[in-house]
Parts: sequence; C-alpha cells; structure tokens
Amino acid sequence: MNGAEILIKTALKAGIEVCFTNPGTTELPLVSAFDAVPGMRPILGLFEGCCTGAADGYGRMTDQPAMTLLHLGPGLSNGIANLHNARRARTPLFNVIGEHASWHRPLDAPLTMDIETLASTVSGWQRTNTSSQTLSKDTVDAIAAALQGQVSTLIVPIDYQWTECPDQPIIRSPDPTDLIDADSIERAAALLRTDSKVALILGGRALRKRGLKAAARISAKTGCDLLSERAPARVERGVGIPVAKFIPYFPSQALDLLSRYQGVVLAGAAEPVTFFGWQGYQSRLLNESQHICHINADDKGLPTALENMADALGAPAKVNTSLPHALQVVRPDLPQGTLTAKHAGIILAALQPENAIIVNESITSGGAYLPLAASSPPHTLLMLPAIGYGIPCAVGAAIACPLRPVINFQADGSAMYTLQALWMQARESLNITTLICSNRSYDILKLEFARAGVTPGPSAQTLTDLANPEIGWVQISKGMGVPAVKVDTCEVLAKELKKALNEPGPHLIEMCLG
Amino acid sequence: MNGAEILIKTALKAGIEVCFTNPGTTELPLVSAFDAVPGMRPILGLFEGCCTGAADGYGRMTDQPAMTLLHLGPGLSNGIANLHNARRARTPLFNVIGEHASWHRPLDAPLTMDIETLASTVSGWQRTNTSSQTLSKDTVDAIAAALQGQVSTLIVPIDYQWTECPDQPIIRSPDPTDLIDADSIERAAALLRTDSKVALILGGRALRKRGLKAAARISAKTGCDLLSERAPARVERGVGIPVAKFIPYFPSQALDLLSRYQGVVLAGAAEPVTFFGWQGYQSRLLNESQHICHINADDKGLPTALENMADALGAPAKVNTSLPHALQVVRPDLPQGTLTAKHAGIILAALQPENAIIVNESITSGGAYLPLAASSPPHTLLMLPAIGYGIPCAVGAAIACPLRPVINFQADGSAMYTLQALWMQARESLNITTLICSNRSYDILKLEFARAGVTPGPSAQTLTDLANPEIGWVQISKGMGVPAVKVDTCEVLAKELKKALNEPGPHLIEMCLG
Repeated sequence: MNGAEILIKTALKAGIEVCFTNPGTTELPLVSAFDAVPGMRPILGLFEGCCTGAADGYGRMTDQPAMTLLHLGPGLSNGIANLHNARRARTPLFNVIGEHASWHRPLDAPLTMDIETLASTVSGWQRTNTSSQTLSKDTVDAIAAALQGQVSTLIVPIDYQWTECPDQPIIRSPDPTDLIDADSIERAAALLRTDSKVALILGGRALRKRGLKAAARISAKTGCDLLSERAPARVERGVGIPVAKFIPYFPSQALDLLSRYQGVVLAGAAEPVTFFGWQGYQSRLLNESQHICHINADDKGLPTALENMADALGAPAKVNTSLPHALQVVRPDLPQGTLTAKHAGIILAALQPENAIIVNESITSGGAYLPLAASSPPHTLLMLPAIGYGIPCAVGAAIACPLRPVINFQADGSAMYTLQALWMQARESLNITTLICSNRSYDILKLEFARAGVTPGPSAQTLTDLANPEIGWVQISKGMGVPAVKVDTCEVLAKELKKALNEPGPHLIEMCLG
Repeated sequence: MNGAEILIKTALKAGIEVCFTNPGTTELPLVSAFDAVPGMRPILGLFEGCCTGAADGYGRMTDQPAMTLLHLGPGLSNGIANLHNARRARTPLFNVIGEHASWHRPLDAPLTMDIETLASTVSGWQRTNTSSQTLSKDTVDAIAAALQGQVSTLIVPIDYQWTECPDQPIIRSPDPTDLIDADSIERAAALLRTDSKVALILGGRALRKRGLKAAARISAKTGCDLLSERAPARVERGVGIPVAKFIPYFPSQALDLLSRYQGVVLAGAAEPVTFFGWQGYQSRLLNESQHICHINADDKGLPTALENMADALGAPAKVNTSLPHALQVVRPDLPQGTLTAKHAGIILAALQPENAIIVNESITSGGAYLPLAASSPPHTLLMLPAIGYGIPCAVGAAIACPLRPVINFQADGSAMYTLQALWMQARESLNITTLICSNRSYDILKLEFARAGVTPGPSAQTLTDLANPEIGWVQISKGMGVPAVKVDTCEVLAKELKKALNEPGPHLIEMCLG
C-alpha cells in the first residue's frame, strides 16, 4: 500500500463517495489508487472550476464532503472562485491538491506556485502532508474539519503519494454532537417575548424544513417575521414549507425592510450588510437602536436550536393556520406570446416538478420566479454570490440526488464562466435541465448605471453588451453533448420544458428573452 | 476628474493602449472613465482567464503592458492561472482589480476575499490604493514595475475610483537604461575561451533575433552549442535566424543532452531543472562538475549583453556559413491520407506564412512541428507551462500585431480551459486560425503511465479519456461566432488551412487525429 492508496482508503472509510477531478502528472498515484482501492466514484471535469463547483453542489445536497483532486497551483487557481462559493455556502468539501515531489518543490520549476498561500484564501482548514506515514491521519483530520462546514485543503507532494506505508487507515471518530448555546437561545426568546417588532433572520441549515417549521412555530407564538439571508446556499421551499422572505439585493429596499424592526434574532445568518458598498448608503443594514441577538449554534445544530427556542416560548407543536406559507399548491397560469424574463420565471414556477432541485443563477432575469415558487410543490433552491457556479453546481446536485430532477435557471453571462460543466452533464447522463436566460447583456451593470444616473458611453456599452456576436447556446450545448433547443415564445418554452423534464439525461433550453 | 479618470489618463500617458476586462459593479467608475478619458481600447472577455491570457499574449508581442481590469477577488481568482503564465513569461502586465468601497471591505460581504494574498501569488509588484489623490502615482509606479517584466497588481477600492481629485496625472519617467554586468560577461567569455565543451543556454529576450544572432557569432567563434530554455515565452524562428535547441521535456533526454557539456553559460535562462520531480531522476539537470556562468543582465539588456560578449570574444561581425540554422526556406512535402498528429505538424510547417505568430499549446501532438519550422519563413513562436493559455494568448498577440497572421496550434484538452476566448476572436474580427489537435484524450497522462510502467485501470482510463462524449469543436466554435470545419485527412487540412489563412477574421479547424 502506498500513500495515495491509504489516502483513498481512509477517505472511503470516512464516507467519501465521489471525487470531482481534473488530474495531472503530480496526481497520477492518486488516479491509480482509485483502481487499487475501489469504491470511490471519480468524475472528470474539463476545467477545475467545474470540479469545485460540482463538489459544492454535492456538499450542499448531502451535507457530506465530496473530494476534489486538482493539479498543482494552476489547477487550484482555476478552482478558487467556486471554492470561495463553497466557503460562503458553508459546504463541507475535501480539497486535495497534488504538489511537486518534496525535493523538487524548492527548485521553482515552471508550474511551481505558492499553493499554501493560494489555498489559504478559501480554506477553513489546510495542511501540507510531509510523509506517507501521516497521510491517513491528515486525511481523517481534513475530512473532520470539512464536516464543520468548510473547505479543507490537503496538499500532497507526489513522492509521499507513491511511497509505501502500512495498510492501517485511521477510522474517523463519530461526529461530535451539535453545539448549541442555551443561554443565547434564552436571550433571543426574551427579546421575542417583548412587544418589540422582531425579525428572525435565518441562514445556513436553519433554512431546511425542520428549521423553517420551528421558526414558523416561533412566529405563530410571538408574531415575529421570518426573513432569510439574501442568497442562501440552500433553502427548502414550496407548499407546506414556511417561507422566510429574502432580504433584498438593493440597499434601499433592504433598509426599508429591516428598518421596520426594533429587534433582530440571527439564527445561522451573519448580521446583514449590503452586497456592495454603494455611494450614499451605509453598508450595515441594522442600526444602533435595534436590539440584536445571535443564536450561537453550529450549522447542523440550528434546527434543534430553533426547536428548543420554540419550546421555550411555549409555541404550539404544530401550526396549521395563519402561516406565512401556502397550504395548497397554486400554479400560475401559463403566459402566452413573446417570451420575457418575467414569463420565463412564471413558466418555471408553473411546471417545476415536485422534489425538484432548482439551481438559481438567473441574476436579473429571475425576479418573477421566487415569490411564485413558494406555492409550487416542495423543492430545494440553491443560490450563491460569485457567478459561475450554476452549471457545475447542478452537476454536483444531480450526482448527489440522482432521483431528483435538477433545473438550472441560468443567466447567460455567468453561464459562460464554467460552461465546460455541460460536458460533465452529458458524460454522466445527469437529469439536468439548463434554462439559459439569453438577454445577451450584462444587465446587472446596466441596472447599476441606471441607479447611479449614468448614461453609458460607447465604451461602457461595449463592456455590458454580449450581442456581438450572439452566443449560440444551442450549438455550444450540442458541442458538449447536451441536446438543446432555442425558444422565443412562452408556448414553445412550456412545451420544451415539459419534454426535457420527461426525458432522461441533460437538456439545455436557450430562452431568447425579448 | 475622479480617481478612475486619473488612473486611465495616467495609464494613457504612460503608453497603455489596451485593456482586457470583465468588469463588475466595483469597476463601474473605471468603465465610465474609458469614455470620459478616451484613448484606451477596452476589450471585453467573458471569463477573466481569457483577459489575463490575452494581456500575456499582448505583452509578449509588444514588450509593453496591457491593462487588465478584473472584478474583486472572484474575478482575480479566475485570472490567476494565466497571470502565473505571464509571470513565468516575464510579461509586463498592469493588473487592476476593483475592490469593495474602503468602508465596506471590513464587513465581509459575500464577494469579499483576501485579494492582496491572492494577488501576491502572481504579482512581482502590488499595492492597494488608499486615496484618489495617490491613484496617479500608484498607476505610474505600477506601470514602471510592470515594465521590469512582471505582473503589477493595483487594487483600487471603488470609493477612491469615484472620488474627485485634481487633473494632474504624473508622467512616467523615461525607462532606465539596460542593466548589464560586464564582469559576468567577462567570466562567461573566459569559460567560452577554454577548450571545454560549453552550452550557451538562452532564455527571455535572448531568444529574439538580435540575441540569437549574437549567440550565433559566439558559437561560430568558440564552438559552443546554442540551447534554449524548455518552453520559452517567445522565440524568433525560421530561415536566417539561428536555432537554439530546446531542452527536452522528459528527464532522460534532457540529462542526455546536458551531460555532454563541461561548462554552461546561462543568458536569460534559469539553471535548468526538470519539469516535474520524476521518480528515479534528479531534478537539477546540471551537476557539480559542470562549470556554470550566469550573464547578469535584465531581460531587455540580454541582446546587448550577448553582442558585447561576442565582441569581447572577437567573434566575426557577420556569420554566413556553418550556422546552426537554415539558409534557405525548406518546406516539407505535404503528406497525404489519414491525418495524424505528426502530419498536422508537417502541414503547419509547410504552410505557415512568413511573419506568422505561432501560439503553440499542442502538448503531445506537436512533436513533429518544431524541428521542421526552423526552416520555414521567419516567424514568432509563443509557448508556456500551465495549460489554458493558447486561445487567449492568440487573442492578445493578434490585438498586438493586427497585420500578422496568428496560428494557434492547440491541444483539445487544454483548449477547453479558456474556450470563451474564441468569442473575443469573433468580436474583434481577429486574424487567428485555431488548429485543434483533437485526440480526445489527455495523452500526456497516458504517456506518463506508460513511462512509469503502469497499466491504467478503469478509473484511470476514465480520467484520461475525453471521448465520451466527443467534444464537438465545430459546433462550439460556431456557437462562439468563429467559423469552423472538421477535417480528418491531410489533403482537406491543407486546403482548409490555406483557405483560413487567406480569409480575414478567425477560423477554427478541428483536426480529428487518427
């Protein structure tokens, strides 16, 4: 047994099932180890950002880390942006980087980079392995750290991968119990018992079904409003599931909403700040006069913490009426005629199947969708800050949940970032429908110019315009092996979406938005 | 005048003509400044790695920095791998990153990253601007540092971009004269005067025409061999231009070559080391018994340093005979029948026009090409270590040299990394012909397995195979606006290559290699 094999064996025993990888020469012993120690499913991505984005999607859906295996500093570089997204999503992720042989590292060969410094920008935990003898322990430590909801990076020089070591994998200790600070719950409950107008802002796993149901009990008892962090990594939605209203993106709307409250309870959410620092607006969305309580609990303890708080408040065990959510499925009518962004959102809400996973990177095109989908059948919604996560995140979600349909509601500009992940969808025959919102424009920047009262000159127009040449999504998609159609009316979109959802394997629909 | 405008005005006065960018909200004042202070050509890329790769190609061809403008840490992340290539190529590059407003930075908003730490992994110089009042000085300092042959990163918070400041751009000082250490030349000359068998290893701008001609004079006088660093950023080649033999990639071949020499003179090249640390091989390719001399000169001083050394050695002013290069154009015969990688290289050498710029990222498919092209008409060859530079590098070279045909000899696996740059080629109507070496495989990894005597198992085969599904380069290319054809015989490749070179604008030829 060599170092690479003990790493894979240890990871298998710790429950790691999937590795998203784009390996190179310095990872070849690990590539061989997938065969020598069978059990892990290696999935090839043709660009590292697709691998890290897929691992993020997988981790969000399973709460278990996928492994990534990347090639040296350049490979890690290409994966960094989606590792940043994973970090923000609190996704467990076991990120393995092959490094030059230990004796080769100091010689500054062409591909040498400072991997440790690079990795430090996204890793909650990281270590550089120094011997095959310690690779099993390093692997177990990395996976335990990942399970805290973070990116764990293990850098493994190739000579320690190929060096022999005993076949004695370390077994991962049982997960620690949830960390929940009862005092913090009591302080929040005390605030909620007052007559103050209070918002309970949910984030992380508080937005799973159990957390939302406990939050709804608290709301029923105390009259507090339920809010959600702006773009949560994952939220359960649909009929029967309490709704937490998303804090809006633009600062005036966010401040309008949050200024209504005298008190705020934060459960899994950081204190809300604006997405950017906008001229004329403060960044902090809460002010000195507002009473703020934090629920101190780790991410996986949040649902229990909220249940404990509901019990402490004497909230009813079940809430059947006056809930901030739909009690029966309400599907919007299918619109007709020329397709617009608004129509696209309505049609998606009207047709998305029960139990769907919706990866939402629709940016400016998605406005109509979110409120409507609250009355759709139960489903999971995935979102996040930095663009380029949608297509690979859908890959990871589909690998994690092969029996659930995945729909990626995807802006065109950001789709271009990691479009290579379409090839993974074809290769792995994943049930993913990608809806490209083709507005041929960086509309978010045009909106920002309009907000600032700036009329874009010719250069600024050039830099926000994607129409010259138009991106042929149907051709690109077919070139990656994913069947595709282009639609420009509501009727055809509805027909094609139904068809895509009924056929196995991936599909792409280029929605030419008017 | 605001900070953004003074930055652009200062950069224009310092000679910056082009900005490759994918901007976001934190760069909008700079986007507006392209219109307020006209003169710079902003070029949109749909992924940041395409922008940094294009700036690298531009800088290699002009020896002047292009500007890049990237969005926050995630945008920089996506551009890091090609900035690493630019760093290795000693390319001057002025890399501007928009940052959150200064007051917003500490609040850890969703897109916040540690940009300074990220940038430190690739930047020879970097600074975070702290006021619009100092933006002009920061810009001049950054550009002066870039001109030393490195990536200069200037991080500019958006509030300093939009804050007013005086219209007083600082004017860049004249470039310093070349730094050439005469003693180091004398030491090298002394070695060359001995009876030892000596290799003169050239790198950087020693591989331009002047440097190579001076090196040929030295060779004619002393009998030394001319070698080149393994994959130089740029080398002038073709009939009438002395040839420096590339140090081979694999260690046994490299050691075979270098062990022939008792002495080595390094001119612009680092002491040669193997590309990877291979089992059973030392990484340093020179040994203790070999006498090593370094020519101490900055990159742009290298041709003069070599001329000085030739003069010091009493070398003939012109060398007309017995040169290590072709004296007349020799074109290989066009092969016929099924297209192989070898045939593709022969056809390229047979047809490439005079003055072409060849961007070579052919990896395993390019072996036949390099020796043959030494007898082609004069041309420029661009290469580099980390994959994913070819398509964007071609963009930058074509922007830099609009009258020269650019041919990108491109492996299929690495083409997938930054394929979005095809769209830039269409948008800017660039005269680029991309030859995709479609072997549907990561052949370099298969070669490494074979070298190690490893028979890949099913998982390892999966991770080196790109055939399922096959990548449809013609469809992808057309989807990005670049006309494309697929060829699988020598005759059709020759016909299509001639046609592509004769038509304006970009073309892609998918070479289906048997």
